[in-house]
Amino acid sequence: MTQVADLGEFSLIARLTASLPTPPEVIAGVGDDAAILDIQGAMLLATCDAQVQDTHFRLERSTPQDIGHKALAVNISDCAAMGAHPRFALISLLLPPTLEVATLEGIYEGMRQEATRFGVAIIGGNIARLVERLVIDITLLGLADEHRVLRRHGARPGDAIFVTGTLGLAGAGLLAQEDLTLSVPLDARQRALQAQQRPEPRVAAGLWLAAHGATAAIDVSDGFLADLGHICEASGMQAEIAIESLPIAHATRTIAQAAGVDPVELALSAGEDYELIFTVPIHAASDLARQLAEATGTTATQIGICAEGAPRVMIRGYTRSANAPTGWDHIRGPMARN
Amino acid sequence: MTQVADLGEFSLIARLTASLPTPPEVIAGVGDDAAILDIQGAMLLATCDAQVQDTHFRLERSTPQDIGHKALAVNISDCAAMGAHPRFALISLLLPPTLEVATLEGIYEGMRQEATRFGVAIIGGNIARLVERLVIDITLLGLADEHRVLRRHGARPGDAIFVTGTLGLAGAGLLAQEDLTLSVPLDARQRALQAQQRPEPRVAAGLWLAAHGATAAIDVSDGFLADLGHICEASGMQAEIAIESLPIAHATRTIAQAAGVDPVELALSAGEDYELIFTVPIHAASDLARQLAEATGTTATQIGICAEGAPRVMIRGYTRSANAPTGWDHIRGPMARN
Repeated sequence: MTQVADLGEFSLIARLTASLPTPPEVIAGVGDDAAILDIQGAMLLATCDAQVQDTHFRLERSTPQDIGHKALAVNISDCAAMGAHPRFALISLLLPPTLEVATLEGIYEGMRQEATRFGVAIIGGNIARLVERLVIDITLLGLADEHRVLRRHGARPGDAIFVTGTLGLAGAGLLAQEDLTLSVPLDARQRALQAQQRPEPRVAAGLWLAAHGATAAIDVSDGFLADLGHICEASGMQAEIAIESLPIAHATRTIAQAAGVDPVELALSAGEDYELIFTVPIHAASDLARQLAEATGTTATQIGICAEGAPRVMIRGYTRSANAPTGWDHIRGPMARN
Repeated sequence: MTQVADLGEFSLIARLTASLPTPPEVIAGVGDDAAILDIQGAMLLATCDAQVQDTHFRLERSTPQDIGHKALAVNISDCAAMGAHPRFALISLLLPPTLEVATLEGIYEGMRQEATRFGVAIIGGNIARLVERLVIDITLLGLADEHRVLRRHGARPGDAIFVTGTLGLAGAGLLAQEDLTLSVPLDARQRALQAQQRPEPRVAAGLWLAAHGATAAIDVSDGFLADLGHICEASGMQAEIAIESLPIAHATRTIAQAAGVDPVELALSAGEDYELIFTVPIHAASDLARQLAEATGTTATQIGICAEGAPRVMIRGYTRSANAPTGWDHIRGPMARN
């Protein structure tokens, strides 16, 4: 008998959802960062993401506030990737009866702070007992301005590919978190831990990009290569990446070096940066980074172009080992290269 | 340090959600069967409920289809209790890597059938690994007709209290499921198992009641006493129940007798019947059951009246043992009598 780990996350989703009917109010169902619904003319987005103790966070390594912050932030990031306003959250908690109330209150405080910062109302939820570990499963609803939503399928050959912020810093944070003896400067460690534990969803950038002609977007959650690969598949094109243009923070390089890891590998596959990968028509590319920074304070870097070809990510100027992962599969763990 | 089991489900929810802000678009937040949102004039309901393996279902005792059916049905029931149309579902799965794909496909098939039957579109979801057990966490979105929504707080002294269908049959089903040697007729066993494993959300009844002046409603999930107690608290009134009027199916009595359990106790506290408890102005009570049955095919029975007084449920004509539970607490288990 086939087990779910034999299939992996993406094959399993494809198999389970293959024959789902989509009524006309469902503008987008399975296969984007969020579903898009037409609610009597309003465009409502709906997405959910779960954080599982000892997979996505450790109670002994993060503060409760950080755990709550991140549980909500990763959902807000899905909204950001579609250029929508995050608005309402339902919090489903699965919790061991022995969990300290103070811990749970700290987690809720972290969620509440992040919700307030982004104008999200916590509207309800559910509590159920799960003996073995804590799970925070959040459903987030968002609203798009008019009919401008960023999706994965709009990239066209010739478009320029950008990424906000830098890549690999959250992965460096995980290295720093797991090896407390790593000899790195305190400020580098703190920046990387912050990126790992308190990711910053790019809501303002997503809204600006949706209003200014970006053709596709996704957030970096599973890993840059895997996530850009989703755009390639949905848009039916090839991405050509110039490796030297990948934005990698000094802190990332410092920590990678101390850990004996290639910083480029962190950037390509570690994931959890919650930056936006997006595409724009080439004529808009030259001035885009300046305009985006002026409007939102978010930096962005052109890292490649879209080309005709079978959906895949081509990396120029860098050779990866044959079995280097592209990202994270939520059932199997590190994702095999395609 | 206080643990979550020391507080229990309802105190915990109250503590976590005490200071949540509610913006004007949030018509109802925490504290009803579903949250109610004003989405540019449309009334959108949002609710979530999780089914945890070996708490809410057992893979060895239910078919995968039944498990999927129930996971969605309990959420649809929350929509029914508010008199709204269930419309969109997000399916969050937490699953062991060793789970058989065929089992998961069966669960999805059960959800899909139930979704189709009620016009619900499965629009997305999430998959994460949870080594120990399977959890199906569903968020359901519904839409209300105009501004008619049934809530918990509208019952007034003098209103009549009704319940649809019968009480205790799902509890009898659990007894039959747990003791395969119980000597009861096959048809009684089958009816009770059906009630336990494939509950029937009262969507048509809820919609009809919302349109015909019901003042409050809730579904029987945790237990009749506990759920009616929520209406009493939200409405600030006392419920007086005539014990002899509680509708209890013959199958429930047969199974209870065989198991040495009082069938009235099953009706009062076993829960999971997913019937609707609702209140109507007394002038509407006399003909209501006939009208509801004609319009929706759903039976209903008047079981008591609302009275002035501190919020609680008074049972006339029956004495319970001092420590009999009122229902189910999702963290602690059986709920202590208030």
